[in-house]
Amino acid sequence: MGRNCLIGQSGGPTVVINSSLLGLIRGAESSAAIDKIYGAEYGIEGVLNDRIVDLTLEEQAELELFKYTPASILGSCRYKLANLEEEVGDYQKIFATFAKYKIGYFFYIGGNDSMDTVMKLNKYAQQIGYEINIIGIPKTIDNDLVGTDHCPGYGSAAKYIATSVMEIARDGIVYDREIVQIIEVMGRDTGWLAAASILAKKDSVASPDLIFLPEIPFNKLDFLREVKEKLAERKKINIVVAEGLKDSQGRYLVDSGVDYHDEFGHRKMGGVAYLLGEWVKGSLCNRVKSIEINIMQRAAFHAVAGNDLEEAFRVGFEAVKFALAGETGKMVAIKRISNHPYQIDYEVIAVEKVANKTKKIPLEWIDQELKTVNPEFYDYISPLVQGEVEMPSKRGLPSFAKLYIKN
Amino acid sequence: MGRNCLIGQSGGPTVVINSSLLGLIRGAESSAAIDKIYGAEYGIEGVLNDRIVDLTLEEQAELELFKYTPASILGSCRYKLANLEEEVGDYQKIFATFAKYKIGYFFYIGGNDSMDTVMKLNKYAQQIGYEINIIGIPKTIDNDLVGTDHCPGYGSAAKYIATSVMEIARDGIVYDREIVQIIEVMGRDTGWLAAASILAKKDSVASPDLIFLPEIPFNKLDFLREVKEKLAERKKINIVVAEGLKDSQGRYLVDSGVDYHDEFGHRKMGGVAYLLGEWVKGSLCNRVKSIEINIMQRAAFHAVAGNDLEEAFRVGFEAVKFALAGETGKMVAIKRISNHPYQIDYEVIAVEKVANKTKKIPLEWIDQELKTVNPEFYDYISPLVQGEVEMPSKRGLPSFAKLYIKN
Repeated sequence: MGRNCLIGQSGGPTVVINSSLLGLIRGAESSAAIDKIYGAEYGIEGVLNDRIVDLTLEEQAELELFKYTPASILGSCRYKLANLEEEVGDYQKIFATFAKYKIGYFFYIGGNDSMDTVMKLNKYAQQIGYEINIIGIPKTIDNDLVGTDHCPGYGSAAKYIATSVMEIARDGIVYDREIVQIIEVMGRDTGWLAAASILAKKDSVASPDLIFLPEIPFNKLDFLREVKEKLAERKKINIVVAEGLKDSQGRYLVDSGVDYHDEFGHRKMGGVAYLLGEWVKGSLCNRVKSIEINIMQRAAFHAVAGNDLEEAFRVGFEAVKFALAGETGKMVAIKRISNHPYQIDYEVIAVEKVANKTKKIPLEWIDQELKTVNPEFYDYISPLVQGEVEMPSKRGLPSFAKLYIKN
Repeated sequence: MGRNCLIGQSGGPTVVINSSLLGLIRGAESSAAIDKIYGAEYGIEGVLNDRIVDLTLEEQAELELFKYTPASILGSCRYKLANLEEEVGDYQKIFATFAKYKIGYFFYIGGNDSMDTVMKLNKYAQQIGYEINIIGIPKTIDNDLVGTDHCPGYGSAAKYIATSVMEIARDGIVYDREIVQIIEVMGRDTGWLAAASILAKKDSVASPDLIFLPEIPFNKLDFLREVKEKLAERKKINIVVAEGLKDSQGRYLVDSGVDYHDEFGHRKMGGVAYLLGEWVKGSLCNRVKSIEINIMQRAAFHAVAGNDLEEAFRVGFEAVKFALAGETGKMVAIKRISNHPYQIDYEVIAVEKVANKTKKIPLEWIDQELKTVNPEFYDYISPLVQGEVEMPSKRGLPSFAKLYIKN
């Protein structure tokens, strides 16, 4: 009889995180070395608290829906394990659960925080001599994981953002009046999501006119000059900004305390698009719309990218193969072989190289003067948003898998 | 030689407004009585200012893209004509343009304000004895036009909202913590859009838990009690609210001046979801997310409903037939024949019955106690969001028609 495997989902949701879950299940099913397939409720919190579900006997029709369902159906967490040297209580509980369910393979789907968990658990297993293979499966819309060409979850978010920017741009310019639209997308430390809007430029409206990224320090006077120049060229302009824009001192604009208070000194509400909008409204254009593309950029399964969905499945499937080949303390990574045609391969890298680190957009891919990104970035991102998906639906609405947690 | 026709688009954009434009063009092409097909830039403003484009010679491949392109490609306006008794200047200019281009048919796609324009122009034509057939084509995501079962544009917005509520609900409940999500949708005077979220209830997450509509006066104490009761049943709840919620005196909540200021008396930013969120946060639940489904609900062609797209085309196509049959001063309306199977027909109604009026949700379709809508509403809306659409795309992103206005 083989050992059992356990799967957890962690960190912020994406639309393809359950595709990776299904990839893991399919990989485990096809291996004689793995007996039962368990899922942990709420990531590592479920392992800590012995909240484990048996996925082995789930019906096939239900399993197939996993691929087409956004947001962790096993639940998620943002739990950070203490350093091993400081406190072993959590580790003892976790490995008691591992022992109870005879877990020989642990797969953890998540971002750079989750890879910290993978790293620490692997270290502890080696310390106590518990035989287990622990593999991280990359997942984040932010695309900020080191060591992988890109992250499952990013392509779909990028597709949603580019499509939405095309649609918002067209919506905003229907009237015969000047308008500045400022569209805010996620990205506290990196501009991968904001830069994805460059794909919208192929539409005849040719937006966005300007893109502002956290990688480049933001200067208010430059910003106002650039908006003014654009408004001299055309009456209606669209600007995309990342939520995490920072000033030259590295402070988030929304936290800078400068120019972000009303005349009585009270902090104003809203994100960076709102702040920038106020600046423009005060001086350059009377009609300004600040639009936040919010939760939908990581939740809109209805705009999923086929390549992303497939790759999310494959990183899960490959993770099982790597584990069975003896790998542990590793993360599955995507290696790009070529752009034309788009070809990738899967490999593993040591999780220490990924945990708690952040990959930014290479500076040479950014055009700092024109406030846009270079063709290298376009070539990088273009294949990631491609691929059609036939989605299961019922009466015009999506058919999602059931949840394994309570609401 | 026949007379020419002119088409204008007016009011807020929808994702199917250009499908109606194409329907009109196809109707006009197939008639020997109509010679040239013109479009007015920015609705009636283009007629006033002689900004007319000739659509007759547009390429077929480009015309076909009209159907798959959101937001008025001819541009739009919110221009209200003066009363005829007060000021005829605008009328003289408009009819000078009509005469210049030999316009014998004028088609105006829009909502209840646009039907005011149709009504007034028709009256003036009769006064001066100008031979023209003027027909309104309904269009609004708000679904608030009197005399038609529903409005083209509504079904797609409803589908987007229901889908998004499903996705946002799932996104919000992944963690093992209490949460209240308050999702705000459009609708200043009617709850048609907010009520559409009832479709999301079929998902296993069974959200929304509560729906608040402008048709029913909002009471803060009742609201807090209802949220508290729901939180006693489950840890994670989702609430949908219309932006135009009003108190018992008919004042918009966001304008009420009550409870909407910070401790220093300054008005807070944000919409009604934010306001309600602050109330809940202060008393019932520490984790509250207020989410505005913004522009995308009327711009997201990527989530268009097939039935809506087809009906938008047909109201345009039928408008030409009605005009050729001699109708004028009328709006094309949709009449529902049956729900199972879903069957409709097209008719015309006098535009006086529509202009400047607002259709609300029938009170008997609303469950005031449970803060939801009744099965009658569900049966009404269910067919409107159905129908699949094959969308033209290129490298994973939509292929939209060109704009006939400058940005």
